[in-house]
Formats: sequence, structure tokens, C-alpha cells
Amino acid sequence: MKTLLIGFGNVGKATFKVLREKMPQIEIVAITNSKGTLINPGEIDPFSDAKIEEFPEFQHNMTGEQALKELGVDLLIETTPTNIKNAEPGLSHIRYALSHKVDVVTSNKGPLAFDFQGLKDLQRKHNTLLRYEATVAASIPIFNMVESCLPINTVYEVHGVLNGTCNYILWKMENRGGDMGVILKDAQERGIAETDPSADIDGIDAAVKLVILTNSLLNRHVRFTDVKRQGIRRITEEAFHIANQKNETIRLIGSATSETLEVAPKVIPKTSTLNVPHTMNAVTLRFDIAKELTLSGYGAGGMETANAIVNDVFRIWSSRVNNTDD
Amino acid sequence: MKTLLIGFGNVGKATFKVLREKMPQIEIVAITNSKGTLINPGEIDPFSDAKIEEFPEFQHNMTGEQALKELGVDLLIETTPTNIKNAEPGLSHIRYALSHKVDVVTSNKGPLAFDFQGLKDLQRKHNTLLRYEATVAASIPIFNMVESCLPINTVYEVHGVLNGTCNYILWKMENRGGDMGVILKDAQERGIAETDPSADIDGIDAAVKLVILTNSLLNRHVRFTDVKRQGIRRITEEAFHIANQKNETIRLIGSATSETLEVAPKVIPKTSTLNVPHTMNAVTLRFDIAKELTLSGYGAGGMETANAIVNDVFRIWSSRVNNTDD
Repeated sequence: MKTLLIGFGNVGKATFKVLREKMPQIEIVAITNSKGTLINPGEIDPFSDAKIEEFPEFQHNMTGEQALKELGVDLLIETTPTNIKNAEPGLSHIRYALSHKVDVVTSNKGPLAFDFQGLKDLQRKHNTLLRYEATVAASIPIFNMVESCLPINTVYEVHGVLNGTCNYILWKMENRGGDMGVILKDAQERGIAETDPSADIDGIDAAVKLVILTNSLLNRHVRFTDVKRQGIRRITEEAFHIANQKNETIRLIGSATSETLEVAPKVIPKTSTLNVPHTMNAVTLRFDIAKELTLSGYGAGGMETANAIVNDVFRIWSSRVNNTDD
Repeated sequence: MKTLLIGFGNVGKATFKVLREKMPQIEIVAITNSKGTLINPGEIDPFSDAKIEEFPEFQHNMTGEQALKELGVDLLIETTPTNIKNAEPGLSHIRYALSHKVDVVTSNKGPLAFDFQGLKDLQRKHNTLLRYEATVAASIPIFNMVESCLPINTVYEVHGVLNGTCNYILWKMENRGGDMGVILKDAQERGIAETDPSADIDGIDAAVKLVILTNSLLNRHVRFTDVKRQGIRRITEEAFHIANQKNETIRLIGSATSETLEVAPKVIPKTSTLNVPHTMNAVTLRFDIAKELTLSGYGAGGMETANAIVNDVFRIWSSRVNNTDD
């Protein structure tokens, strides 16, 4: 399976490493980053200090789309960063691939949140495969579990702690005390929050993930702007004191049913399975037959995301080898 | 797919109902209970007061093994009760089926705990399929998730709250206070604990499930007698007071690594993802790549168990239709 890897940040590098270790049958024919494309990366060490653009075989200015057109690949692994404005360049990469007999595995939330239905239509029309387990709560295989392990079930509700940074901040406020400003600064110093923390603490990242969950599991057609969204900026130390007296806590929860779609801070019992510590994610699904199931694990991190990507690669490889439609 | 259902208690009845609703392509050709076999059950109502032995088509004294021999079925659904002494009659049913081109789905823990390796060998030798998701933590698809959603991973540790009755008793002791005797009586009155509670509170049921998890996920060859086992009879109100002062609680945990195999009450942080309420189950798995994942849900109940069984039936049906080896 000739594979092109677009995006070579933490996730791309970890993916390269895990693919090498776990799926030697996958031939990585090129790696594209924002500067160009390295053909035949062979045995490079993804975590060495040498950048891929320093190799003599590096084709400066060969873009992802050019690499897709010229290298005749069977599989695209798309790990460029999420762009919630127009989902580019990931959206163009994925659209081109799905229309040209190239299966796709992606960790990029933008294209899925921006045009879920369009991409699903494209894969159906061209009989290509698109997998996106890594886009939501990386180490938790939500989509694949519902599809493969609970096939007789209909999902009717999703509730989740979908953003690890917010969870860390709220968990710290609960357990150490202190106001939002102090805890946010601590999270930034630890590299858990970005210098511009808006995408996390204003609930944008959680809302993007909720859109993907909702379209995928509840078969709705929703967009980012449909999400009723409130971030965690206004949560006070006092709010945690009050919650604590009732054995409750506060977490940023994304929720969707057939009618509702919301990201907001919620007061939940401390015994709730959504009350997870540190930067963990948790997702509770409700079904007609299986009733209720909660999964929790780490939602971010290069290796966790690479895990989701390579499991998806395995599923595509396995269905192509078995000649089934996955 | 011509299907024989052996066992028609709560689980068998719920399975019959869910199969009808969700998989009309499965033809249930007979139902066997301890008294005989009803051929062509057709449109019977599994939850009506009329017992199947009252139907004129009921073949008194036709055993499960006879039904398997005479009715030419493709699939056996085995839901007879767990017998931890010699695993019968389930073990004979399953052995016969797997050796005679009949795939098997079972909720019966006995045969899996008693002869896991033998049954796996039998299915390999005869190219039949055996699925047993319902045997451990019914609504949580542990085995199928590891197999289908995390295929590139190696599991190296399992920790779980595997017995809902013990969890209910310990959760009540934690939250309402009271000693073991009082809470156990309450649980018996609610139908959560049996009149003879030994299988639950002495950790026998949890140990049986741990054996299945360990053989299946850690590729070890262990037996029930290998489990270092301690039940919850000696847990005192005082123990919960002490734990509570450190923000901890007590749960009956089954644990296995490549070296260890133990069921015992453990002090865990209240923030642990294994601290689940009521009769819930929870299982934490540790992997080389995916790191850590916890699943929680209800482990018992007719509908939850039927859910696991029918999802397994779907997987077998789907792999037979696609002509893959599952």
C-alpha cells in the first residue's frame, strides 16, 4: 500500500514511527510538510534534529496536492493542523484523494467539521475509504467501536469531555483552588495550554469535535455555527466551592441529541463517569439496546493520536486485503 | 443463517427479542431449555406467561446436543447458566458445535474459563467462529474493541470492576454507611445479590471473568485455580472511614499482568476511573501504543447481555456473508 504522509509535526512524526514498528507492509513513499516533499524517506529517524528539508532528495515546493497527483499513492495520511476557518489545506488534500482512488486516514478536524457530508458522499461515489478516529479523543476509539462492536445499536445521545486543556484547568481549580488566571498561566507554562488559549478555553475545539461526533454518530447534518457554545473563562473559584458542598464539580461538556447541540460548563456529580482527572477525555454514549457506555482516556499527545491513525490504517489495509468494503 | 438458541432464561429471552428486532435475517429454528426443544418458535412472545414447553410442537427431552445433531444449524447461541465446577452442559454444546461447522456465540462464562485454549484450538482446526463478548461486563465490548479497534496494540495490563453485586455493596457502604450484613440483606431484597451470595461476594464470579480476560487479551494460559482470590466479606465500615479521610474508596478489583493474577478489595482514589457507582462495571486496559483506556457500563441484565450476544451474532453473520475469517 503506497502511502503519502502529509504533515510532519508531532503527530506526523509519531505516526511515521508507529507505522514502521507495527505495519512494515505499509510503504511510505513520501512525506510532505509546509516546505515541500521528501520522496522515499526510507530509514530516516523522525525524531532526529535533522529536518526533512535538509535531505538532498527533498523536493522544495512540491505541495501535498502535487505529491498526490504525481506519486501514484493508494493511501493518504493527512495530519496537517486544523484550520477552522476554511479547513485548508487539509480539505483540498482529502477531497482530491477521495476522488482519485486514494483512501484517507486523517487526524485533521477541520475538513470533517467543515464538510462531513460532502466527504462522505465523495467516498461513496468513488468507492474510497475515509477514516477519522484521530479527530476526536485520540486514544479512545469511539467511531470504530460504534461501527464494529455495537453494529445493532442506534446512538441517541452523546456527552463528552472533549478538550483536555479545559479539563486540566477545571480539575486544577477543583483540587488546588485558585482563580482561572493563575491556573491558565500554570497550564501555559506546562505546555498544556497555548499562548493564545482561545481555541481551548472558549470551547471552539470541543465544539468542532462535537460536530464530528454528531454528524457521524447521530446522522445529523450540523455545522460549527450550529453549536450553542460557552467557554470556561467565567468559571470562578467560588463556583467550585458551591459545587463541592454538594459533592459536585464543574467540567466543560459537549452534548448532542437528535435536537440539541451544546458545549458549556456543566455541574456534574463527583461520581459521574465524566469526572476525569488531568488532561483526560471521556465520552458517554447512550444507545437503544446497549443502554449506556463511557470511554475515557487521553485525548491528545503525539503517540495517542498516532495510535488512532495507525489503527485506522490497519482497518483500511485489512479491508482492502480482504476485498470487503470495510 | 439457521440458528439454535440453547438456554431460555432472562438472557435467552432478551436475545430472542433483540434478534427479532435487529436481525430478521437470522432464522431461529429452535429453542432448547432444560426440558426439551421447541422447533420453529416462529412468532412466540418470549416474555409472555406461556412457557415454551406448553406449545404442541415442543419436543420433550430433546436435549441441546440432540438438537445440534438433528436440526442442521449454522449458528449456536449458548446461554445456559455458568457452572464453574465442570462447565456443563455448555462446554459439551460448544465443543460439539465448533467441531461440526457450527459457529458459536455464548454468554456462558464456564466453558471459556474452563477450557479457553481447547475451544480456541477447536475453532482454528475446524474453521468455525467462537465469540464471547457477553461473558465479561456485558454492555462493554472489551474483546471486540481490542480486536477490531486497536489491532496494532499489545495489551499488557487489565484492571477491572467485574462484579456488579460487589460494586453495589461497596458503593452503598461508602455512601450510606452500615456494615456488610445490613447492606448485603438490602441487596438481596432488591434482587441484586443472590440468596446464596458466595459466587459474588467471595470473588468467584470476578475471578472467572478475569481468567477469560487474561487468556483472551494477555495470551496467557491460566485457570480459575491460578487466581489469587479474596472476597469482600471482611470489609468493615471502619475501613471506609479511613479510606474516606484520604479521599479514597474500596472496590473489588480483578487485575492481571503477564505475571500477576488477582481478585481482591483494593483502596483506590475516589477520582479513579474504576470508581463507578451502583452495579456498574469498569475495565482499564494498558497498551504499548494506545497507553490507557477505561470503559464503564452495566455488566449484567438481560438486555445488556442480549446486546453483547446479538452484536457478536452480527459480526459472525457479517464475516460469513463477506466470506472473510472475521
